[in-house]
Amino acid sequence: MPVEQRTKDHVLGLIERVQAKGLRFRDEQITMAHGAGGKATLTLIEGLLAPAFGLTELADAAVVGDVAVTTDSFVVKPIRFPGGSIGELAVNGTVNDLAVGGARPLALTLSLILEEGLPADDLRAEVEAIAAAAVAAGVTIVGGDTKVVERGRCDSMYVTTTGVGRVDPRAQLSPGSARPGDLILVSGPIGEHGTAIMLARGEFELEAPVESDTRSLWPAVDVLLEAAGPSLRCLRDATRGGVASVLNEIARASGVAVTVRETDVPVPAAGTGTSQSDPFRKGPCRWPTSRSSC
Amino acid sequence: MPVEQRTKDHVLGLIERVQAKGLRFRDEQITMAHGAGGKATLTLIEGLLAPAFGLTELADAAVVGDVAVTTDSFVVKPIRFPGGSIGELAVNGTVNDLAVGGARPLALTLSLILEEGLPADDLRAEVEAIAAAAVAAGVTIVGGDTKVVERGRCDSMYVTTTGVGRVDPRAQLSPGSARPGDLILVSGPIGEHGTAIMLARGEFELEAPVESDTRSLWPAVDVLLEAAGPSLRCLRDATRGGVASVLNEIARASGVAVTVRETDVPVPAAGTGTSQSDPFRKGPCRWPTSRSSC
Repeated sequence: MPVEQRTKDHVLGLIERVQAKGLRFRDEQITMAHGAGGKATLTLIEGLLAPAFGLTELADAAVVGDVAVTTDSFVVKPIRFPGGSIGELAVNGTVNDLAVGGARPLALTLSLILEEGLPADDLRAEVEAIAAAAVAAGVTIVGGDTKVVERGRCDSMYVTTTGVGRVDPRAQLSPGSARPGDLILVSGPIGEHGTAIMLARGEFELEAPVESDTRSLWPAVDVLLEAAGPSLRCLRDATRGGVASVLNEIARASGVAVTVRETDVPVPAAGTGTSQSDPFRKGPCRWPTSRSSC
Repeated sequence: MPVEQRTKDHVLGLIERVQAKGLRFRDEQITMAHGAGGKATLTLIEGLLAPAFGLTELADAAVVGDVAVTTDSFVVKPIRFPGGSIGELAVNGTVNDLAVGGARPLALTLSLILEEGLPADDLRAEVEAIAAAAVAAGVTIVGGDTKVVERGRCDSMYVTTTGVGRVDPRAQLSPGSARPGDLILVSGPIGEHGTAIMLARGEFELEAPVESDTRSLWPAVDVLLEAAGPSLRCLRDATRGGVASVLNEIARASGVAVTVRETDVPVPAAGTGTSQSDPFRKGPCRWPTSRSSC
């Protein structure tokens, strides 16, 4: 048996073993790891949340009739970073979960949790960013909610957006539909958003001109559906956990192995030192409509 | 002119003056008052959020096609209290915003912000409470998101629920549709939930057997729509700000005055000392889909 075949068999065996035993949530308390997009997150989702709510498929947007709905909380800090801000991210993240779910984004709701003492100018800036991002993405903000919590009980602001979209009849997308021989297309350089956030937090002792690439993906998805329609298996907006998380998710859902040639992955030069090692060390991280801010 | 007529004219004059001048958000920072359901909240909503997003009508649920959607963040503390918990409240609150908007609740999404260090048993209890409340309300939880924030950056957990419902053709409801001569029906004792929370927080130096009355209102709304259908003007689930807030909202939206006979308002005996004075001192507090946890 050639080496490549033995490697594939080994990987497929690992996938089957993980799938067979299922995940049980046995931790005694919540740690940062449960939100980091790795195995602890997956265990929380697949071992506690999904079974409690009777959820099965791990997709970004759930379908109710011909309507798709998806929700996400954004807790990114700092709230403003090169290339974007929490408000813009909260719109694009949710719009994109609809888009990659094969639904045309129509409307958003917005729930704000604000920290006592938040400067009004910071709030005003985010409200403007949200409004501008919604216009750019072609969605209407139809309503929302605002809560204020005591100083320190929030990090400036947390934003939860829920998107409602119309399922596009051209789309037949599911993470469980990948088949041997399928190709993976990466639409642009990876790791830019995550690297921009980490740099803005000062987590590395370096400076680099890396900007978040947050934007609405519906125009690209629309063109892709028109060109390739039903031959597309699955689309994803790689967020928390990165491209590796997306590939893990598809591999687990479809029961296939994925071959990644590292040299074929578009890593931008400025981010090489940080993002090159990062996107591939994390595991899958989603429950049905999860998407992360960073 | 009789005294009652002069009072009515005075109140109508006040309403017109408030409506005419509009509200401007001029505060320099966010304070707890912006979340308390009074004038500061209204100013934040009507003076900043609603105009930025092009929102006009202040209803609990927004309509997209024949689908109604509403969202709410729940930040109540303590997370468990006599008669309920944050998870149960997050389901019922959102289901009820659909119901009083004249929509049959179908599905919920759920976004959890968890505090690092949260005991797993507390999370498990809330997940079970959410699942049980969803079954009781006849809604499916179709997906969600989970984030973890550093210890202290959240109060155990914050829960955001978004509800999707089907607009019921029997319902023709709007806060702006009240007319002179309409009657206000209060379906049960007021102030129980708010009083239960304040007692659980130890905000009063007294103990009383008051329990939150959190539950799904769709069965009651369903019966009401069947019996009275299009002759109903507006329904509300009185939450943050209480019944007074609801009446203010309707009065402002419809340009009418509301006569309240205090002795006709059902105040439960055990809550008299606290809730009797409370529900009527607060102003309106909503933007289109707002609903509060306490």
